[in-house]
Amino acid sequence: MKRLFLFMVLVVMCAPVGAQQTIGERNSTLSPEILEDGRVTFRLAAAAAERVELTGDMLPQQLITSEHGSWKAPGVVPMTRREDGVWEYTTPEPLASDLYNYNMIVDGVKITDPGNVHTVRDIASIFNLLIVPGGKGDIFSVQDVPHGSLSTVWYPTEDVQHRARRVTIYTPADYLTSNQRYPVLYLLHGMGGDEEAWVGLGRAAQIFDNMIAQGRMKPMIVVMPNGNMAHEAAPGQSHEGLIRPEAMLPRTMDGSYEEQFIDIVNFVDKYYRTHPDSDHRAIAGLSMGGFHSLHIAQYYPGVFGYVGLFSAAVFRGDAAKSEVYRNPEARLQELFATKPHLFWIGIGEEDFLYKENVSLREKLDALNYPYIYHESKDGHIWRNWRDYLVLFVEQLF
Amino acid sequence: MKRLFLFMVLVVMCAPVGAQQTIGERNSTLSPEILEDGRVTFRLAAAAAERVELTGDMLPQQLITSEHGSWKAPGVVPMTRREDGVWEYTTPEPLASDLYNYNMIVDGVKITDPGNVHTVRDIASIFNLLIVPGGKGDIFSVQDVPHGSLSTVWYPTEDVQHRARRVTIYTPADYLTSNQRYPVLYLLHGMGGDEEAWVGLGRAAQIFDNMIAQGRMKPMIVVMPNGNMAHEAAPGQSHEGLIRPEAMLPRTMDGSYEEQFIDIVNFVDKYYRTHPDSDHRAIAGLSMGGFHSLHIAQYYPGVFGYVGLFSAAVFRGDAAKSEVYRNPEARLQELFATKPHLFWIGIGEEDFLYKENVSLREKLDALNYPYIYHESKDGHIWRNWRDYLVLFVEQLF
Repeated sequence: MKRLFLFMVLVVMCAPVGAQQTIGERNSTLSPEILEDGRVTFRLAAAAAERVELTGDMLPQQLITSEHGSWKAPGVVPMTRREDGVWEYTTPEPLASDLYNYNMIVDGVKITDPGNVHTVRDIASIFNLLIVPGGKGDIFSVQDVPHGSLSTVWYPTEDVQHRARRVTIYTPADYLTSNQRYPVLYLLHGMGGDEEAWVGLGRAAQIFDNMIAQGRMKPMIVVMPNGNMAHEAAPGQSHEGLIRPEAMLPRTMDGSYEEQFIDIVNFVDKYYRTHPDSDHRAIAGLSMGGFHSLHIAQYYPGVFGYVGLFSAAVFRGDAAKSEVYRNPEARLQELFATKPHLFWIGIGEEDFLYKENVSLREKLDALNYPYIYHESKDGHIWRNWRDYLVLFVEQLF
Repeated sequence: MKRLFLFMVLVVMCAPVGAQQTIGERNSTLSPEILEDGRVTFRLAAAAAERVELTGDMLPQQLITSEHGSWKAPGVVPMTRREDGVWEYTTPEPLASDLYNYNMIVDGVKITDPGNVHTVRDIASIFNLLIVPGGKGDIFSVQDVPHGSLSTVWYPTEDVQHRARRVTIYTPADYLTSNQRYPVLYLLHGMGGDEEAWVGLGRAAQIFDNMIAQGRMKPMIVVMPNGNMAHEAAPGQSHEGLIRPEAMLPRTMDGSYEEQFIDIVNFVDKYYRTHPDSDHRAIAGLSMGGFHSLHIAQYYPGVFGYVGLFSAAVFRGDAAKSEVYRNPEARLQELFATKPHLFWIGIGEEDFLYKENVSLREKLDALNYPYIYHESKDGHIWRNWRDYLVLFVEQLF
């Protein structure tokens, strides 16, 4: 009987289609493969396909132009069909150690690589992850170091639409086993993201584990909420069932997220062992999350002693929509009157929000408000946000 | 500037390929769509494809036969190309309220539906989830009820290969806000699964939230460990990086998981508010997890007062490999000498492990060991395991 069981497992794991629900299916095509010389080969078994392509951020970017301007997007290259029906592409050069995202395109349909079970979702898009080790990529990898816990928790809110909202919380490795109190970083996602973005595409838990183990970051609690007030949670975790991406946009920049943000802070201070003061409280976010971070820090001056804006959308909020966005100059003044320990701005030289961040710096300079500025290459991409996170958390607390 | 930001968001969300990394990409093809009459339409934009198919457990099963026997697998149906290049399939009948898994197949390559961001992984296979509400499916959906927390935590172990292993822990909604102690269910995955299987394909957190809210289940802590001792965690969460599915099999049934299981129990009793006794401790698992549950309960008699075997692989372990598998009759006697409150067996009438479970019951009958038996339709499938979980937890504590 044991032999039959093992036989069934192998059958089911090798079955091309269909039987997979029982145990798991094996894909026999090795992809991606990091070659000895550091180049990477991607493969897809698709004997019946007419055309297979690879797209990802390890390829030279392509320039997209339209009447509204131009911007860069991940490149697309054709894969080559072998005689046995497996399509292949090998990078011409070794890939630098880093984290890459990619997809394949089969006869025009974008898919994930069936050979690679590492996938991450960025709202409606699902990518494969590839980490090339041996350098910068190591900080995004799971290492043999003490690991923190990652929890999804629901906090109560006074917001009219939902009585509880989902938040992801990282607690450092010694949180469970000690009685210590910890500082707290509130880390916000961008438009199209949710409470799963920083731990998925951002690899935040791995970054924190590794940096804490290396002594580059103080052990801290990191709180990653959901900034889409139209929903209480990520797709699949919400009572709405299947959330269509176009449904994400309402109630993201109408002031309601900023207003109820104090509910999250109070919840965390009540049920976690925090140091509940501004010296031990930071807020940072990417893109729309930078917009949120700035407005939350301004709306609740004296609550956050550290502020980080990563490729932030720093234009003014719509004053007609919310109290949060009224009198921005006065609010900014109130924030800096509390003398935050750190006001950090990071942006890529090709970011479409670059100019707006120049204006912000000019305003801060004119008012003599201190800040730290970091300019990187490239534009509005996750690679920059992971790098900014590393640089930002090193300076906290 | 705000207008440009919103324009960029829309551009990026609508871009067909490539720009997606920045914010998120919108797929404009609605799929799946639950029609008013309860039928479901699946759609895929694939103008250049030659052949598109749908496979999933909502379709009539197909019989696979080989020299080793025959078994049923999810069916495959062709989708029909519309003039605009969108392929469609509509179920001929309304789908009953339930949770379904499906994939599409484009020119022979199995993919997930780009219109549906709800995906779950069963080791090397990634499926779409579809929940049809209005009946049984509601227990698998997020409802507007108090939600428990779901955490991934690392427990220390004496096992030679890893010093810490990852485990998923559900704590009920009032755990965080009360000082109460709770009973604990240890819930084990099958071969090919890992510590993410029960919360992904099993929808365990939703089932617990809903059943606790309905008063059908006592609030309890549920601990879902990883039974693949060759690895410390699921793919992507392990220091090994990309784990190939064929690498999962070693060290799953060599006794080492059963032996170190007490490390998990001790960890949970030390750091969680449990009732640390057998009256408040249950263990259950599916397939290989049923095998593990039986052997763990036997190896540690008096530790678990409730045992559940879901489509369990109940053959003997290899006595040459481990102490755990020696003297099984004596161990079974020791287990029943502790008078467990519940010994529960569930299996489907078409399960390839059916006969083995008949033998187990004959043995229990002959020895006058009490148990509860549940027989369902179908075979070795997740739909059964979710149902068994519901039936089992209702009887706990």
